Amino acid sequence: MATGGVNADLAKERERATFDSEQLTNFLYRGPEKVRRKRYLQNLAIQDPVFKKAPLWAFLNREQQYATALKKHLHAYRRIQELGITEPVEKFYYREAAAPHENSPIGLHESMFIPTIEKQATEEQKRKWLPLCHSLKMIGTYAQTELGHGTFIRGLETTATYDPVAKEFILSTPKLTAMKYWPGNLGKTTNHCLVMAQLITKGKNHGIHMFMLQTRDMETHQPLPGIELGDIGPKFGFFDNDNGYMILKDVRIPRENMFMRYYKVLEDGTYVTPPGDRLNYLSMVLLRSAITSMIGQHLSQACIIAIRYSAVRRQTEISPGGEEAQVLDYQTQQYKLFPALATSYAMLMAGRFMYDFYLKTTAQIEKGDLGTMPQLHALSAGLKAFSTWECTAAIEVCRMSCGGHGYSHASGIPKIYVDATPGCTYEGENTVMMLQVARFLMKMYTNLQKGQELPSFVQYMTKSLDTKSCMKEEVAPKCLVMAYEHRASRLIKAAADAIQAMVMSGSSPQEAWNKNTVPLTWAALAFCHMFVVKNFFEMVEDAKMDGQTKAAFMALCKLYAVNGVITHLGEFIQDGYLNNQQVQYIQKSLLDLLAEIRPNAVALVDAFDYPDAILQSCLGRYDGQVYQALYDFAKSSPLNEKEVLDSFFDYVKPVQQELEAMNQPMARL
Amino acid sequence: MATGGVNADLAKERERATFDSEQLTNFLYRGPEKVRRKRYLQNLAIQDPVFKKAPLWAFLNREQQYATALKKHLHAYRRIQELGITEPVEKFYYREAAAPHENSPIGLHESMFIPTIEKQATEEQKRKWLPLCHSLKMIGTYAQTELGHGTFIRGLETTATYDPVAKEFILSTPKLTAMKYWPGNLGKTTNHCLVMAQLITKGKNHGIHMFMLQTRDMETHQPLPGIELGDIGPKFGFFDNDNGYMILKDVRIPRENMFMRYYKVLEDGTYVTPPGDRLNYLSMVLLRSAITSMIGQHLSQACIIAIRYSAVRRQTEISPGGEEAQVLDYQTQQYKLFPALATSYAMLMAGRFMYDFYLKTTAQIEKGDLGTMPQLHALSAGLKAFSTWECTAAIEVCRMSCGGHGYSHASGIPKIYVDATPGCTYEGENTVMMLQVARFLMKMYTNLQKGQELPSFVQYMTKSLDTKSCMKEEVAPKCLVMAYEHRASRLIKAAADAIQAMVMSGSSPQEAWNKNTVPLTWAALAFCHMFVVKNFFEMVEDAKMDGQTKAAFMALCKLYAVNGVITHLGEFIQDGYLNNQQVQYIQKSLLDLLAEIRPNAVALVDAFDYPDAILQSCLGRYDGQVYQALYDFAKSSPLNEKEVLDSFFDYVKPVQQELEAMNQPMARL
Repeated sequence: MATGGVNADLAKERERATFDSEQLTNFLYRGPEKVRRKRYLQNLAIQDPVFKKAPLWAFLNREQQYATALKKHLHAYRRIQELGITEPVEKFYYREAAAPHENSPIGLHESMFIPTIEKQATEEQKRKWLPLCHSLKMIGTYAQTELGHGTFIRGLETTATYDPVAKEFILSTPKLTAMKYWPGNLGKTTNHCLVMAQLITKGKNHGIHMFMLQTRDMETHQPLPGIELGDIGPKFGFFDNDNGYMILKDVRIPRENMFMRYYKVLEDGTYVTPPGDRLNYLSMVLLRSAITSMIGQHLSQACIIAIRYSAVRRQTEISPGGEEAQVLDYQTQQYKLFPALATSYAMLMAGRFMYDFYLKTTAQIEKGDLGTMPQLHALSAGLKAFSTWECTAAIEVCRMSCGGHGYSHASGIPKIYVDATPGCTYEGENTVMMLQVARFLMKMYTNLQKGQELPSFVQYMTKSLDTKSCMKEEVAPKCLVMAYEHRASRLIKAAADAIQAMVMSGSSPQEAWNKNTVPLTWAALAFCHMFVVKNFFEMVEDAKMDGQTKAAFMALCKLYAVNGVITHLGEFIQDGYLNNQQVQYIQKSLLDLLAEIRPNAVALVDAFDYPDAILQSCLGRYDGQVYQALYDFAKSSPLNEKEVLDSFFDYVKPVQQELEAMNQPMARL
Repeated sequence: MATGGVNADLAKERERATFDSEQLTNFLYRGPEKVRRKRYLQNLAIQDPVFKKAPLWAFLNREQQYATALKKHLHAYRRIQELGITEPVEKFYYREAAAPHENSPIGLHESMFIPTIEKQATEEQKRKWLPLCHSLKMIGTYAQTELGHGTFIRGLETTATYDPVAKEFILSTPKLTAMKYWPGNLGKTTNHCLVMAQLITKGKNHGIHMFMLQTRDMETHQPLPGIELGDIGPKFGFFDNDNGYMILKDVRIPRENMFMRYYKVLEDGTYVTPPGDRLNYLSMVLLRSAITSMIGQHLSQACIIAIRYSAVRRQTEISPGGEEAQVLDYQTQQYKLFPALATSYAMLMAGRFMYDFYLKTTAQIEKGDLGTMPQLHALSAGLKAFSTWECTAAIEVCRMSCGGHGYSHASGIPKIYVDATPGCTYEGENTVMMLQVARFLMKMYTNLQKGQELPSFVQYMTKSLDTKSCMKEEVAPKCLVMAYEHRASRLIKAAADAIQAMVMSGSSPQEAWNKNTVPLTWAALAFCHMFVVKNFFEMVEDAKMDGQTKAAFMALCKLYAVNGVITHLGEFIQDGYLNNQQVQYIQKSLLDLLAEIRPNAVALVDAFDYPDAILQSCLGRYDGQVYQALYDFAKSSPLNEKEVLDSFFDYVKPVQQELEAMNQPMARL
């Protein structure tokens, strides 16, 4: 294994690919110009000495990880302004390379605090706050989640009671469960936060509203009177972040600190409500839409690592006495990794759709047309939940496909997993999201029964459930998509019928709903799955790329669809929609697709275009020199700084003496 | 929420249970006498001040975690000798309570090093080594895995070359990939290890043999000449363990350091091989058998935490305006947690079977009867893989069912997961294990075709595949078991037929095998699944316990079987074995069982009998005072020791000044 050069197996993989990975890269990032710009920005960060000389997060304790992440992200924040980078996606490229796998302690200041002020604050509030935000005099976060309440926002217990005499709001967390708990960067980093609280004025509760609260002195950074706050302690991941807790004891803030662009409380305490309040949760919808792309990127990194390593790793002779085979040549390994790879592409495409759909819908909303809001809401919730579940599970498959080395932080995959898995919970717990999708689908089904017009992307619900599949030996995309549509329709109808039957037999609608939430989530999952499959096929077909690239891309797309049928086979065939023969065609096509994708596997992950400096993986290195990298990683373990640890003298030696005495009799045996 | 007392919801749960959890506890631990003894030993450890005053692992950095685990386990090692505890299971109870969730840096010394010496060493070697082992003068581990080779042991590259002149072996790791990598406690703790190496004498390689190597000076603990070793660095988990790497540069050891109970190298270098060498891998079989119980225990702890918390946590009104419901009342939550709970019991029962079967088989082997070795080997491999896959996935389901709090180390579940998931890889990578099961099954199938007698537990393969299911509206255990048998038989036949067809059409047997490893793993999984279901039903039926307890236990068992059918439905119905109506019976029974189990959920986890001191979970506390515990956990976070961290002055302040200047223009906007 000549150190320096590219591992021979990996080099061969790249030669034998049937397409040019650069073509796919250009498609993924929407054009060669954007790819050039991405690489330019990433290299700017990678070459910056401040980022370069920082130690790897894995070798630091928690306070060091926090401090390093803070230092890097502050430097990135300043450099981004100096460089005049304004596009969100370009900021992302720069930051991702500046502090790879390090979560920003000022991240919510940029992604939530400032944007919310821009959207929800009055002009006067903006003039006052935004300049201080940009200079980081104000560093803020978003304080919603409480010890006792998360996704169910209406249940929040923090109160903001208006005092018309002092013209102030009194913020309070009246009981233990009301304390704010989890808000990112609330513990140590920020000096302001947006508090979500029950607004009470003139003795009436007007529900959840948002207030600007200063938590720490802007000079000394000490907490202000009446406020107890701190870090919530170590977590599965996000070690470098200070998710916080906060107890408020009758903290008074001026009336002007309520966000009053839409809702108002007048000086005398009169509550004034505006029209069009649905706009409020668009920012949440945007966040959910972004998660689908983000989680697809997390998985794509895990796939790069696992597939490059599987091309380098050799294990067991495929035929006795022969040389050991590349692990990637094993069908079982392909069956783990290629569906994961297909899933990451599928979710990147779904994320692209969501982003474009979000822009389209918000544009319409600006014109006052709220027509597509329900679809946008249902899709953003459903795809967020579906993509995070699918991708986090697939990341673990990638990790375990690397054998023992996958378990080491040298692989980089454990960090990817702990960064990705919270996506199943934050911005709306996945099961709750799926039930919101189910609500939407039940509504569509009722509209259908009433003979009303359905939105285009649930049109398939109008098709008869009696028709059988058109699947032939040559498994066709059209037949695959129709199978997903049939499965979704059938499960939607099954859930709806079960609910209606219960209502007929005297249950209340709520009761009937609650007794069928499992079938309802089955229906919602089938709907989301269908949507992702259909969107993937459409985007591949529309993609502008040469024939070989499109063929390689299409194979992945087909694998995603075929594998989904095999994984959820029962739901596709319970009513005989596919017969045994057709199922066998699909099973054969699964194995054939694994073999078809095999020669392109490495090129398909190269196309994600992640530099080693971002991957930070000994196994995922572009040059495949994994063993030297693992050795170097081990040598830099902090435990190796001393040849003999103090604990040997402190603990082992004394016990040895005592035991020697105790064990004399045994020694004489 | 009155601090101190038991949470009202949790108290009510225990009142409304239909059975006495103590009954089930007695069954799980094989009798009330054993339960009393378990609790006695656990309390001895829990009350010991040395263990009591140690800080929680989560608040320590890695070197501190290692030192604390070492200190605790050394103290436990000595106390166990002082107390005269000799039964392995009793040692386990004591240790589990002494250092909960802390992996012992001398664990392999006790579980692998000493037992291997006892089994594989000559009498003379035992006399020399065992006393030193017991007094911890020698602290050892098992050095097998290399940088380039894991499960494929024949591929190990470390060599032991005999020099007849010096009468010594020369140990060497001739290339980068040959370095030992991963052996537990090899890095810093141990001063000896059992080296697995290719034995070369008289120019001939005789394959892998075992050698005793001293790695560090027994007084100074410094590494010996020619040996480079250290810690491999931070991992997903096992922070408190020093998995190590080791490079050997022509290290000479006396001939007497080869383990010669069975194989010998005479002074002149002549290699002597004994009969009955199959005995060698029995210790591996024992380890694999133990993993099934261990992983079931890991999952049971996650279930205690998630189910108790779900009884305490209230979220969203089930009907508008009403009080918020216990999360455990949501069908979707039950669908996550009850199958997980059923799985943990299923695996504990499978583990119990494996242990008893191991004892029975080894007893026969002592009498020279190797007849059941193949079954023992196939089952230990298959159940190890099946149980670790099922349980680790279920642990994550439990974690995510706790919402955001599950992600905090305060919940305890992330630690359970990272401790459990290596079970999918160590002692034989799961996919490799499954393919060994498949090999066994293909052999059985061939024997069947040849009309030979089959072992009892694959007898069902003789049944016709044309018969349909006996499933009625009242879903009967008998019909469930037969469904699992049918599915397994069908998938075994399908894989065998596919292979035979390829061989017929000219492929080599290896080629045909390698092109069908995916269907082969499907068959192996179905076989293991069937075995676990059948064993679960048999053990529940045979269990000596009162009627209510057995009824509650049986409901779990049925849920395990029913849920498995739903999850893998396609494999059960692809050939029409179950018709649509029968599937609907099973789906209905799934939802009915969730409702049936609901009132007993808390009692069913109480039965696992884990004291809070072992669970170390804020969410899993017996008294349900979860919110006070989360608040206390947060307050003890090391990041809160200082109100303002140095990084504020080091990094934030300077950047604020620079930005203020830069942002003046913006401020004027």
